[in-house]
Amino acid sequence: MTIMDGKMLRDKIIDDVKDKIEKNNLKLNLAIILVGDNEASKIYVRNKEKACEYVGIKCDKYLLDKRTSEDEVISLIDRLNDDEEVTGIILQSPVPNHIDFDKCAGTIKYYKDVDGFTKDNIYNLYMNKDGLVPCTVKGIIRLLDEYKIELEGKHVVIVGRGNIVGKPLSHAMMNRNATVTVCHSKTKNLDGICRTADILVSAVGRANLINKEMVKDGAIVIDVGISRVDNKVVGDASFDEIKDKCSYITPVPGGVGPMTVAMIMENILLAKEMKDNG
Amino acid sequence: MTIMDGKMLRDKIIDDVKDKIEKNNLKLNLAIILVGDNEASKIYVRNKEKACEYVGIKCDKYLLDKRTSEDEVISLIDRLNDDEEVTGIILQSPVPNHIDFDKCAGTIKYYKDVDGFTKDNIYNLYMNKDGLVPCTVKGIIRLLDEYKIELEGKHVVIVGRGNIVGKPLSHAMMNRNATVTVCHSKTKNLDGICRTADILVSAVGRANLINKEMVKDGAIVIDVGISRVDNKVVGDASFDEIKDKCSYITPVPGGVGPMTVAMIMENILLAKEMKDNG
Repeated sequence: MTIMDGKMLRDKIIDDVKDKIEKNNLKLNLAIILVGDNEASKIYVRNKEKACEYVGIKCDKYLLDKRTSEDEVISLIDRLNDDEEVTGIILQSPVPNHIDFDKCAGTIKYYKDVDGFTKDNIYNLYMNKDGLVPCTVKGIIRLLDEYKIELEGKHVVIVGRGNIVGKPLSHAMMNRNATVTVCHSKTKNLDGICRTADILVSAVGRANLINKEMVKDGAIVIDVGISRVDNKVVGDASFDEIKDKCSYITPVPGGVGPMTVAMIMENILLAKEMKDNG
Repeated sequence: MTIMDGKMLRDKIIDDVKDKIEKNNLKLNLAIILVGDNEASKIYVRNKEKACEYVGIKCDKYLLDKRTSEDEVISLIDRLNDDEEVTGIILQSPVPNHIDFDKCAGTIKYYKDVDGFTKDNIYNLYMNKDGLVPCTVKGIIRLLDEYKIELEGKHVVIVGRGNIVGKPLSHAMMNRNATVTVCHSKTKNLDGICRTADILVSAVGRANLINKEMVKDGAIVIDVGISRVDNKVVGDASFDEIKDKCSYITPVPGGVGPMTVAMIMENILLAKEMKDNG
């Protein structure tokens, strides 16, 4: 069994991004909009800031009061869309309940949409065309590639059908010629379906959801879940219980999480290229 | 075993559309663009014309020479987009090789896109929001609803990942809370995966692809394939071989095919509503 080391790969990728920025003397600028004071959001933003600082991307934070209206968020995005200095824009999720995340994030110009959540980028992923791919999805694929895991013809079972991981990952995997199953809260016989997976991806956020009855011998388990148990960050998989059945497994923390931040840095480079190429 | 009668349901739906048009004195207009002289395309166009005539929708055909350029197709679409009289626009597929179907069809205004292939309509389907859903996909769901087949929690295995059926159907089924697997030419163990299906949908266009080893007892088989064997139109399923294993099965011809035309008529009504509601 091999533990897939997302931290090591993140460091390698981030160093590559840093090199590219230095060699080409690139001026890149990430704008992060944070509405309200959700604790998880603050941690995510801090991680992005740290990565930006390391690679040499200027990071501007827009901290908006939790009572900020949708219109105000959208007009800030409009301003950042028009600002020639801004390379990428992130609306940090989660946002307060009165704000429609998809509606607001959807107003980001597609070539500044480094999270890959806008209509144009989703359409490109769906149609298997180039574009900015959601960072967690991109990070999962990159991690599998790093460990030279063939995707073509593999049966990938994804637990969770969210817009951030489940749905876009289903297309990314299909684009790599995997056979894809998407399971969710209404799925019957979840155990049996998971057991058919060559690659099992869980993106739910419920500790101990994936137990040893759900993992085929030799399967690869990608754990995208994050939850907190006894003040400790854990994934969806019962790691100790399943680790000896897997051929590869991502730890939580230290697996997919760090990859997401690395892919944001890559997406900012790509955003710059997309803009320059019109 | 019940044979799902797409012709009967089509007739019922088309009569409903006809009633609505008459009662509300609606002036609807479908523009169909046909490039070249592909025989299959001509038959599809003829079927749509007949349905339009029956329900009282004016149907204008634009028959373009097979050497027509992409730019010419797009400028015709632009003109039809701007024409207040035109309710819906169809670019008939397949088009000659020098024409990028997705690019051209993508220029149709979303509220005139009665085929549901534009970016906006795909995005709406992906996000589970209202919009114009591709007609074959809509027809399959409607047929299952007509026979009161519950979709929630069912395992739907779709063979084929095309843009017309496979991909959009995967979202439509997920939106109805089914567990969805998409198989394709690179899938390994296709037989085994198909055998896990509660509802097996085949949209490939290869005769005898689906045999009795691939069908679970009591499964529902939806056959979207069309091919010609000995001058006879057949589906993907070996109908006689599997019919006694199924609880429900769609025949070819007379199953999904007629439903597609009925759904175009419904989408034209819906297109009119979308335009009127801004």
